[in-house]
Amino acid sequence: MNSDTPAPRRFLVVHGPNLNMLGVREPAVYGHDTLEEVNRRLQAWADAVPPEVGAVALRIAQSNHEGAIIDAIQDALGWADGIVINPGALAHYSYAVRDAVAAVGLPTVEVHLSNIHAREPFRHTSVIAPVCRGQICGFGWYGYVLALEALLRT
Amino acid sequence: MNSDTPAPRRFLVVHGPNLNMLGVREPAVYGHDTLEEVNRRLQAWADAVPPEVGAVALRIAQSNHEGAIIDAIQDALGWADGIVINPGALAHYSYAVRDAVAAVGLPTVEVHLSNIHAREPFRHTSVIAPVCRGQICGFGWYGYVLALEALLRT
Amino acid sequence: MNSDTPAPRRFLVVHGPNLNMLGVREPAVYGHDTLEEVNRRLQAWADAVPPEVGAVALRIAQSNHEGAIIDAIQDALGWADGIVINPGALAHYSYAVRDAVAAVGLPTVEVHLSNIHAREPFRHTSVIAPVCRGQICGFGWYGYVLALEALLRT
Amino acid sequence: MNSDTPAPRRFLVVHGPNLNMLGVREPAVYGHDTLEEVNRRLQAWADAVPPEVGAVALRIAQSNHEGAIIDAIQDALGWADGIVINPGALAHYSYAVRDAVAAVGLPTVEVHLSNIHAREPFRHTSVIAPVCRGQICGFGWYGYVLALEALLRT
Amino acid sequence: MNSDTPAPRRFLVVHGPNLNMLGVREPAVYGHDTLEEVNRRLQAWADAVPPEVGAVALRIAQSNHEGAIIDAIQDALGWADGIVINPGALAHYSYAVRDAVAAVGLPTVEVHLSNIHAREPFRHTSVIAPVCRGQICGFGWYGYVLALEALLRT
Amino acid sequence: MNSDTPAPRRFLVVHGPNLNMLGVREPAVYGHDTLEEVNRRLQAWADAVPPEVGAVALRIAQSNHEGAIIDAIQDALGWADGIVINPGALAHYSYAVRDAVAAVGLPTVEVHLSNIHAREPFRHTSVIAPVCRGQICGFGWYGYVLALEALLRT
Amino acid sequence: MNSDTPAPRRFLVVHGPNLNMLGVREPAVYGHDTLEEVNRRLQAWADAVPPEVGAVALRIAQSNHEGAIIDAIQDALGWADGIVINPGALAHYSYAVRDAVAAVGLPTVEVHLSNIHAREPFRHTSVIAPVCRGQICGFGWYGYVLALEALLRT
Amino acid sequence: MNSDTPAPRRFLVVHGPNLNMLGVREPAVYGHDTLEEVNRRLQAWADAVPPEVGAVALRIAQSNHEGAIIDAIQDALGWADGIVINPGALAHYSYAVRDAVAAVGLPTVEVHLSNIHAREPFRHTSVIAPVCRGQICGFGWYGYVLALEALLRT
Amino acid sequence: MNSDTPAPRRFLVVHGPNLNMLGVREPAVYGHDTLEEVNRRLQAWADAVPPEVGAVALRIAQSNHEGAIIDAIQDALGWADGIVINPGALAHYSYAVRDAVAAVGLPTVEVHLSNIHAREPFRHTSVIAPVCRGQICGFGWYGYVLALEALLRT
Amino acid sequence: MNSDTPAPRRFLVVHGPNLNMLGVREPAVYGHDTLEEVNRRLQAWADAVPPEVGAVALRIAQSNHEGAIIDAIQDALGWADGIVINPGALAHYSYAVRDAVAAVGLPTVEVHLSNIHAREPFRHTSVIAPVCRGQICGFGWYGYVLALEALLRT
Amino acid sequence: MNSDTPAPRRFLVVHGPNLNMLGVREPAVYGHDTLEEVNRRLQAWADAVPPEVGAVALRIAQSNHEGAIIDAIQDALGWADGIVINPGALAHYSYAVRDAVAAVGLPTVEVHLSNIHAREPFRHTSVIAPVCRGQICGFGWYGYVLALEALLRT
Amino acid sequence: MNSDTPAPRRFLVVHGPNLNMLGVREPAVYGHDTLEEVNRRLQAWADAVPPEVGAVALRIAQSNHEGAIIDAIQDALGWADGIVINPGALAHYSYAVRDAVAAVGLPTVEVHLSNIHAREPFRHTSVIAPVCRGQICGFGWYGYVLALEALLRT
Repeated sequence: MNSDTPAPRRFLVVHGPNLNMLGVREPAVYGHDTLEEVNRRLQAWADAVPPEVGAVALRIAQSNHEGAIIDAIQDALGWADGIVINPGALAHYSYAVRDAVAAVGLPTVEVHLSNIHAREPFRHTSVIAPVCRGQICGFGWYGYVLALEALLRT
Repeated sequence: MNSDTPAPRRFLVVHGPNLNMLGVREPAVYGHDTLEEVNRRLQAWADAVPPEVGAVALRIAQSNHEGAIIDAIQDALGWADGIVINPGALAHYSYAVRDAVAAVGLPTVEVHLSNIHAREPFRHTSVIAPVCRGQICGFGWYGYVLALEALLRT
Repeated sequence: MNSDTPAPRRFLVVHGPNLNMLGVREPAVYGHDTLEEVNRRLQAWADAVPPEVGAVALRIAQSNHEGAIIDAIQDALGWADGIVINPGALAHYSYAVRDAVAAVGLPTVEVHLSNIHAREPFRHTSVIAPVCRGQICGFGWYGYVLALEALLRT
Repeated sequence: MNSDTPAPRRFLVVHGPNLNMLGVREPAVYGHDTLEEVNRRLQAWADAVPPEVGAVALRIAQSNHEGAIIDAIQDALGWADGIVINPGALAHYSYAVRDAVAAVGLPTVEVHLSNIHAREPFRHTSVIAPVCRGQICGFGWYGYVLALEALLRT
Repeated sequence: MNSDTPAPRRFLVVHGPNLNMLGVREPAVYGHDTLEEVNRRLQAWADAVPPEVGAVALRIAQSNHEGAIIDAIQDALGWADGIVINPGALAHYSYAVRDAVAAVGLPTVEVHLSNIHAREPFRHTSVIAPVCRGQICGFGWYGYVLALEALLRT
Repeated sequence: MNSDTPAPRRFLVVHGPNLNMLGVREPAVYGHDTLEEVNRRLQAWADAVPPEVGAVALRIAQSNHEGAIIDAIQDALGWADGIVINPGALAHYSYAVRDAVAAVGLPTVEVHLSNIHAREPFRHTSVIAPVCRGQICGFGWYGYVLALEALLRT
Repeated sequence: MNSDTPAPRRFLVVHGPNLNMLGVREPAVYGHDTLEEVNRRLQAWADAVPPEVGAVALRIAQSNHEGAIIDAIQDALGWADGIVINPGALAHYSYAVRDAVAAVGLPTVEVHLSNIHAREPFRHTSVIAPVCRGQICGFGWYGYVLALEALLRT
Repeated sequence: MNSDTPAPRRFLVVHGPNLNMLGVREPAVYGHDTLEEVNRRLQAWADAVPPEVGAVALRIAQSNHEGAIIDAIQDALGWADGIVINPGALAHYSYAVRDAVAAVGLPTVEVHLSNIHAREPFRHTSVIAPVCRGQICGFGWYGYVLALEALLRT
Repeated sequence: MNSDTPAPRRFLVVHGPNLNMLGVREPAVYGHDTLEEVNRRLQAWADAVPPEVGAVALRIAQSNHEGAIIDAIQDALGWADGIVINPGALAHYSYAVRDAVAAVGLPTVEVHLSNIHAREPFRHTSVIAPVCRGQICGFGWYGYVLALEALLRT
Repeated sequence: MNSDTPAPRRFLVVHGPNLNMLGVREPAVYGHDTLEEVNRRLQAWADAVPPEVGAVALRIAQSNHEGAIIDAIQDALGWADGIVINPGALAHYSYAVRDAVAAVGLPTVEVHLSNIHAREPFRHTSVIAPVCRGQICGFGWYGYVLALEALLRT
Repeated sequence: MNSDTPAPRRFLVVHGPNLNMLGVREPAVYGHDTLEEVNRRLQAWADAVPPEVGAVALRIAQSNHEGAIIDAIQDALGWADGIVINPGALAHYSYAVRDAVAAVGLPTVEVHLSNIHAREPFRHTSVIAPVCRGQICGFGWYGYVLALEALLRT
Repeated sequence: MNSDTPAPRRFLVVHGPNLNMLGVREPAVYGHDTLEEVNRRLQAWADAVPPEVGAVALRIAQSNHEGAIIDAIQDALGWADGIVINPGALAHYSYAVRDAVAAVGLPTVEVHLSNIHAREPFRHTSVIAPVCRGQICGFGWYGYVLALEALLRT
């Protein structure tokens, strides 16, 4: 590798509970795209990052299990340069996921498809946000792209 | 199948965390029947549904894992006509199970063995109930039968 | 009476404030059946209880007056084997009805036509539920049948 | 009746608990007029409505009994075009009166003699207001006239 | 009447909802005496007041109806020198009874048979107490005597 | 001026933030009339006050600036006999407007176009209401007329 | 001692912080009697208890020190048959006094001179009341007599 | 203009109170860039939008005055296709700004430089967020770019 | 300037909304002095600071506009050595003023004429106090002198 | 004494729990001066009060015992013209000290060395402040001087 | 086995989510020891229990999965004499783990490495503690030893 | 002393209010041992510390007086190496004891005989715990030994 080439960047993208249902149900709230389609677009974004910015590698995971999400976050340590996490409803009570994010200490961006601040009161508070670098919500699948851009560019 | 025969009905019955301990411990609160005995009675109820009402098929699952319960609810989509769920203590904090119930959109009845409204304050609130069709509590194992009757008859 | 015949069972059914409006207004929430129709069905259910289970007698009352409901509950003492009560909105503040239920000490089931846990926050809490045997909500008029079944069978 | 004459309008005016004490006690808070005097003025107002606006008929009721107030509201259905209600202290807890107002579905205006928002905290909240068309408070007996004007003119 | 004789004193004693069940149910909480027995003792106390203190006349009422209790309080105006009221569970929500007590302006003592401060949290607060002269709780039927003594002697 | 003629009455009408958008947006909530149209009607009302009641002069102001509203209220001192204020959303947090109303000490009526008690919880509380003479809400532009009538007649 | 004579009864009366200021300051709230005068009257009451009821001995203590009050309560163990305590403002926060009352296990009556339920909100709650037999408030110095009567007669 | 060229897009960018201090003070929290520098970068971003996406015009405003911010939002109606707003501390209490955003009905994105969910509790809640399309926080000046991208691309 | 002379000290004094009404209205709460009189006294205090302490220059501003107050605080940067601010009612909700105080980083003392801790509950909390050096309340106009003394001497 | 000489003024200064540790520990929060040094400075201030203002006598007390502080406050009655009290942590819960301040009725100023409004939430509320004339916090030992000045000059 | 030898004691030690990260990250909070090292020390402690106290066998488990922790607790039934559990962040919301502890009914001690009462407010409450025998926090890995000692010796 | 011998360790053990009643009352909650017996055991533990760990000296104090406990904590400064404190009910409100612990800055362990987290809600929160090194509760007198071990070994 030429020394002028920026080091490749590696990001973990974690989809929490019920995001595998994306596009199948409640499209009025969450849109018509399936999770596979969303993931394909994220990979396309990664592939399109200009060489002068550097190569980007994504690892994408989804689970309905809080424990599996914690495992994935811990496994990112040593491989990833940052994490994009849509914790789904775990955002509102899983202090264990919060502690995992804090434990690995990687820059992490929380993403929500919908504007959680405009929905039921319990969705207004994320127990994970305080240990993240930032939060993006309300832009559907494009929120993941914004989060990756934020990790990549700043 | 003769066109006069009602279509068979299929229901998922989900038992949440610690319900596998049924009959083993704390019988004063939860009764002396084991979960196997309860499940056997539910199957007996299903078998006894009169032909003119239609055949009833049950799929019964128990897990101590929130994620496995979400998986089971999601898997019901496409097979089941309704869900009876005793979420155990998950009722009081698992917004992820709530979202799963909302995502599959099947008529769902929440059941609790004991009268949760007469116990500790934290048990008075179910975060799952708002996305269910109804809630039945306080009648021990017979609550499952009442829930199935409700799904079948109304 | 032949000694093999089970003793007849007597239940009081109490309808609280505004339930006399049933079927007249807000059918989207409460259904199209009038209270008379509902009561007729409950009597039909009672008449259809198989002889081997035993005869069932119902006394049905409705009032918009909290005091009249307390009177009815107190009068059940010595006559009834159990009470099914839909306290309507009294559920949310009438500690006096609660004390009446506790005072007579009969097994009592609280019923609500709609799923109160899915409506306005003030409807999520019943001050009467803690002194009842159980609570059933969300199944329209059929909830009364479920409650009577619960009293009869368990 | 000449077809150019507007149809007569009929309004129910309901006075809640303790309003029969008006003028007798606590005049510093509630004024010196008795309820009879207030009712007489409301009738005078009705009689003075100009013919081109249309005839106005009032039915006025007072009770210290929550149940009787609910009965009166229900009885308005089919007769009245609107309701003016001063629920007195029932405003602060009677979800049963609230449900009655919602059940009959008539345009209803809540009136309080004093400015309830300037008194004890418990008086700041009316559980009935959310199902009314509006609320008027602080203008003594004249608040009833304002409420009737609002029903008549808008 | 000799001018040296003190004027006779007249007190209204009001028993609220469910106090007619006294002695019948829950004697562990409320004691074994029936309401009739309690009332008889209160009359005996009145009869035993020494002549130099003055004659005492009691009017005793019980109702399960909030409205009837308000009526009774209002009727005391012009006759009674004071009121002893055990509002039962109405103590915890009936702002209408509170307003009645405030409206008649007679010295009023609130009595509870049990120590309400040692029971469920909702019983710790009386919305009626702030407009009473004092509150006595925890001494069973003897609390009425203490309340009457307080009205008579101070 | 003939001494029999009542002194003319002068009222300040203050429209708070976003009321200049009236009729332009969200007509479902706030109606189709523009603020100019509303103001024209208020002036028409003032012109139509019968001579025996007395002449009425209005000064009408609107601002999106809290400070400008406070200035307007202070300027009313010495000129106006009363104030009608629709503080818009400032009602829910502007203790500075509240203090201005209290400082000038003129009889003030708070008006809201919609029934604020039937909307989001934050709109249920007005920090300005406690220093006003009364509050009128839910009657659209006609609420201003009712408020002016209240100031004029009582 | 003749066996027909009832055993003498011994009661501790405890006055908490600032009660030594009685009669000196704020007579509008607490009356004009000094603590010495109150204590003299309590002794007079004790002396006047009829022989057939039995002799009554009082021990009376006052302190501004929470610890001294706890000491006094503990010292009552083995001597007193009951305690009358006016904890003053300690009522609202001293869980240590509460534990002392619970530890000695003697029947204890809490007394307040004023009706604490009609004063500032912080005075509405007594942390000591839940471990007492009852509470009497609002009758000035006579409240102590009522409390002693309650201990003696019931 | 060639019909194949996308219509130009116009966005209003609003900076709230104290953002004019950017780069001058507290760089540890808010970064070293001045507001002018940030605005220059936003304009550079707009200039760099590829022609096939369409031209982008920005109007950028800053004010310490809530009223001026409301004015600016209202003025956007008819000109702008969307709004990016960093309301600063107004986010936490200005229901008037919220109403302005709701009134103009343009897609609006709320931006905060810092991760407000990781700071003092009062910063965790934005009263403006519920009427926005989404919220982005924690990425410094780059958050504005992300917000503009979100408006432009989705 | 002789090097022995202490550098002159410059302080900004900011009066918030409604303080221009000082002395005109509500003298019972705020005293009879007008703001001009208060300002004159502050200037007299500044003039009387002994030479050995150093010259003191004051800049005094009042506004009913939150934004103007923020502007004034920001303008103090570079000129003033400290700020004395009486934010009036803004103290209770203006996080924007708080952020301005924090942004300029000058030692700031919050002053209130009345003892805000003895008034309505909403006045007990200042959102500005946490970023000030201290708070002085309850001493009328003299509180400003105390605040200036505190800035000057410590 | 010459009649032109103002009467001497006497003030009690009370230091609450842990203030005897001043200067020994936590100097970062409370400064390096010992309590003796602070007291010496207060006496120096008193000695330096100009004769035309009048002589000032101080009585200074410190105790870790709530009861001793109450005793000291009560003892001030008849001797002192005012009280300066730093109640330390008692400020946050000692309603008994509050009652003592209210009982003696002397003008009292509450002082805290640190800005309690900028520390832990429990320190933001003083239960003693509402019965004081004012509160001064954040200026270390000089706060006592400010408080004495306030008592002396206003 | 000689009958004089005490029966061997068996304890389950459960480490909750993220405790596998021990020593890897955030050593300032949790110390530098890895979980393996901690476990080794616990085994060493067990091996060092004197024979006269009896043999001690440990089973040690760690999981990031709430369900696996519940499984482990349930499996302890029939094998273990007690449980030491560090539930990590599950302590603050997992009512399911709480129910598991209650269901097996074994003496259980909750351990936390850090002093949870000195950290974020959400960590102050453990929903598991109420069904444990006791709680130990703040002593790092040594807390496990203390918990085992407590189970062994008391 | 041989230089190889560890320096002796000195610990203060403080028993708060009502602990002198240990063993006398409520043995079901607090056990049958008297405080003297507990203290004797603690001394025995100290005497049994192996020489290679070092000599341990204990100073043990009990008081019902908050002030005396603060005095004892302050006196420990300069003598003790650590403090074990069972504050009894003072744990729940004595911010003054908390400040004393913080002021002396010695490692302090809070001990409670019972599991305070399993009792009344007011006992769940200790205001002292946040300034302690750790908390141990639920193990009766043995909790003191555990606390001393923790201080000695870690």
